[in-house]
Amino acid sequence: MGMTMAEKIIAKASNKLAVKPGDFVWANINTAMMDDLLGPRVVIADQIKKLGNTVWDKEKVVIISDHYSPAANITQAEILQFTRNWASEYGIGKYYEGLGPCHQVLAEKGFDIPGSLMVGTDSHTTTAGAFGCFGTGIGSTEMLGVLVSGQIWLRVPESILFTWNGKLQSGVFAKDIILRTIKEIGQAGATYKVMEFAGNAIENLTVDERMTITNMAVEAGAKTGLIAPDEKVFAYLSAIGAQRGDPQYSDPDAIYSERYSFDASKLVPQIALPHEVDKVVDVSEAEGEVIHQAYLGSCTNGRFDDLAQAAKILKGKKVHPRVRFLVSAASRSIYHQAITTGIIETLSDAGAMILAPSCGACLGLHSGILARGERAISSTNRNFVGRMGHKESDLFLGSPASVAATAIEGKIADPRKYL
Amino acid sequence: MGMTMAEKIIAKASNKLAVKPGDFVWANINTAMMDDLLGPRVVIADQIKKLGNTVWDKEKVVIISDHYSPAANITQAEILQFTRNWASEYGIGKYYEGLGPCHQVLAEKGFDIPGSLMVGTDSHTTTAGAFGCFGTGIGSTEMLGVLVSGQIWLRVPESILFTWNGKLQSGVFAKDIILRTIKEIGQAGATYKVMEFAGNAIENLTVDERMTITNMAVEAGAKTGLIAPDEKVFAYLSAIGAQRGDPQYSDPDAIYSERYSFDASKLVPQIALPHEVDKVVDVSEAEGEVIHQAYLGSCTNGRFDDLAQAAKILKGKKVHPRVRFLVSAASRSIYHQAITTGIIETLSDAGAMILAPSCGACLGLHSGILARGERAISSTNRNFVGRMGHKESDLFLGSPASVAATAIEGKIADPRKYL
Repeated sequence: MGMTMAEKIIAKASNKLAVKPGDFVWANINTAMMDDLLGPRVVIADQIKKLGNTVWDKEKVVIISDHYSPAANITQAEILQFTRNWASEYGIGKYYEGLGPCHQVLAEKGFDIPGSLMVGTDSHTTTAGAFGCFGTGIGSTEMLGVLVSGQIWLRVPESILFTWNGKLQSGVFAKDIILRTIKEIGQAGATYKVMEFAGNAIENLTVDERMTITNMAVEAGAKTGLIAPDEKVFAYLSAIGAQRGDPQYSDPDAIYSERYSFDASKLVPQIALPHEVDKVVDVSEAEGEVIHQAYLGSCTNGRFDDLAQAAKILKGKKVHPRVRFLVSAASRSIYHQAITTGIIETLSDAGAMILAPSCGACLGLHSGILARGERAISSTNRNFVGRMGHKESDLFLGSPASVAATAIEGKIADPRKYL
Repeated sequence: MGMTMAEKIIAKASNKLAVKPGDFVWANINTAMMDDLLGPRVVIADQIKKLGNTVWDKEKVVIISDHYSPAANITQAEILQFTRNWASEYGIGKYYEGLGPCHQVLAEKGFDIPGSLMVGTDSHTTTAGAFGCFGTGIGSTEMLGVLVSGQIWLRVPESILFTWNGKLQSGVFAKDIILRTIKEIGQAGATYKVMEFAGNAIENLTVDERMTITNMAVEAGAKTGLIAPDEKVFAYLSAIGAQRGDPQYSDPDAIYSERYSFDASKLVPQIALPHEVDKVVDVSEAEGEVIHQAYLGSCTNGRFDDLAQAAKILKGKKVHPRVRFLVSAASRSIYHQAITTGIIETLSDAGAMILAPSCGACLGLHSGILARGERAISSTNRNFVGRMGHKESDLFLGSPASVAATAIEGKIADPRKYL
């Protein structure tokens, strides 16, 4: 009987020849990532002292402080201080602070290894699936178990196959693919399942773009999102001197609990309306909605391709006077690349406020919080009530191109008219 | 009897031929500047309704939201929202948000008019004195009076003359001049007096550098700091299409309450130790003090010259691994200029986190707050207890060059060794 790539990765990690959905396994963890928000400071720091007071493998633990950097108040500063000191005390050499959202930093540092199993204390650890790495978010208590044992107890999830074929229109992007997918199955449509993405529309995406899709798999409840690693992935890994890993691929006779097919050529820009990620409409149904802030950034859509796409639309144009247009590259190296290619200059010229790479405004921690009654469009991943600030604020989600077009008009706009 | 430039400006503003220290006058305000921190939201918004409910001259009122942008929490977001809406309701067309600290924005927008009188709800309004504009900070209640009457009741201050002659050594800057000056007279040494700066060392400074000096005049308690406007100032104003104004100059027989003379050629880099601005020592007495954060920015020292100086020192070098090096240009246009000239690239390469232009960390509002026990060096203007975060943090002040050298070593360092 064939296996999906998710099943193969879990089988490998648990030293079994085969697994099937519903099986319970103990799987070996290749990478355990903690952030500042839900890392050492929660449960772990106290409890690990009772459990041997050391981590199972210092080389396999990564700590990335991304949510509270740069600290907006003393509490945030002390969380960063605690996390930094904890990493030092436990001999975690792989500590990164201030470089940007963890999922992007993980990719850039070569931790998204094809065929491997990664757990992280952040739900969007699914992002690593763009490299064929089974990445999944876990709670701090579960992370404590991983830290002391190097293993996790898993029920093998079913997989759902999403096939996107056809050529995307100009102005339509990976973000539109994932928003449309989530609309189809709903925000709980893939709960504890794997979302596997395939088809030539997926293959035609850059690795950066694929990360947007796997990043948001968790927004449909998925355990992870996976895309078969191909030459683009191997070229990415090779360029940064990272491991090629042991890539796994779904068998032709793999069993999926469900299969969905989409025609990419018919897709138009998608907008998620307040306050649900699956409340998705074609842009035409949202056009004209007034906004006060436009946010371009995050582990979902703050990569180089995203910034470049926004710059293409904003070149020579000005942001609407009502709009604060905030841009936060997904990492310092992306910021750097965007500077040397003139993209930051273009965005700044248009009226953008360029922020440091950080999780900041995405989840309402700092650097661009919304007041009561304010409305924003964002390239991020969640638009829940109060996500970016006041519980009486509204958040629309769209692609970087949709964010840029909307920033120009001060109301939700179709990016296709600018391309 | 001769008059000082301060006396001449006040005489002109109060329609008198002459004034002398101790006189009480009603002076006409040329520019009334409010910020988000102490502007409309404090006293003014409520009380102005009882006093005619309008400002005396919409063209002479400027509102700059700089402290809370980008908003780090809902309270900050709502202060920005309130300020923005108030400006709109009262017909204040000159509303600027997110462009950086107000004193820099005032200069760039041409409000620092030689010979004019400016009041602002921020103590560092003294900065305008670099243009020969009598700028002074006032409280919100006093601003309410200005807004409805266009006038302010003033006691004419005495002036103190500080003459700096001689050529500055490499590695010694305007910041060192003002720190050394404040050390000489103490933090209350110029209370309700004007600090007038003269001499060829002052004349040799750029306008940007002079702004550092007048900015910090208030740190010795001064009503304002003034420098006679010269061709450099007129060239600056001409380049931005601003008014040349009606420049005023001290008479040769003007009377000063005190006179100080300094030899600029003997000055070495100065460091203000925690927790007083006048606790100033030669850098050699502070060298080796461990720091965790280095901050380059603010209305004091976040200008192009400052960033360029730091970049010169950091070119090809790396920030010490223990140090968070935060850089915030004093305005969006400076940020832009620093991008196009490669300075941001150099700083980012060295390991700097580049923040949006804002007052942020300077006064502990957001974007780089210190935790308990942390120590920082900063190019800003105050190092009072808790200024940048926890009351048990330490803040050293120095020039941008001293900040850069210290960022490299992780402890207070003499910038001269890098130049």
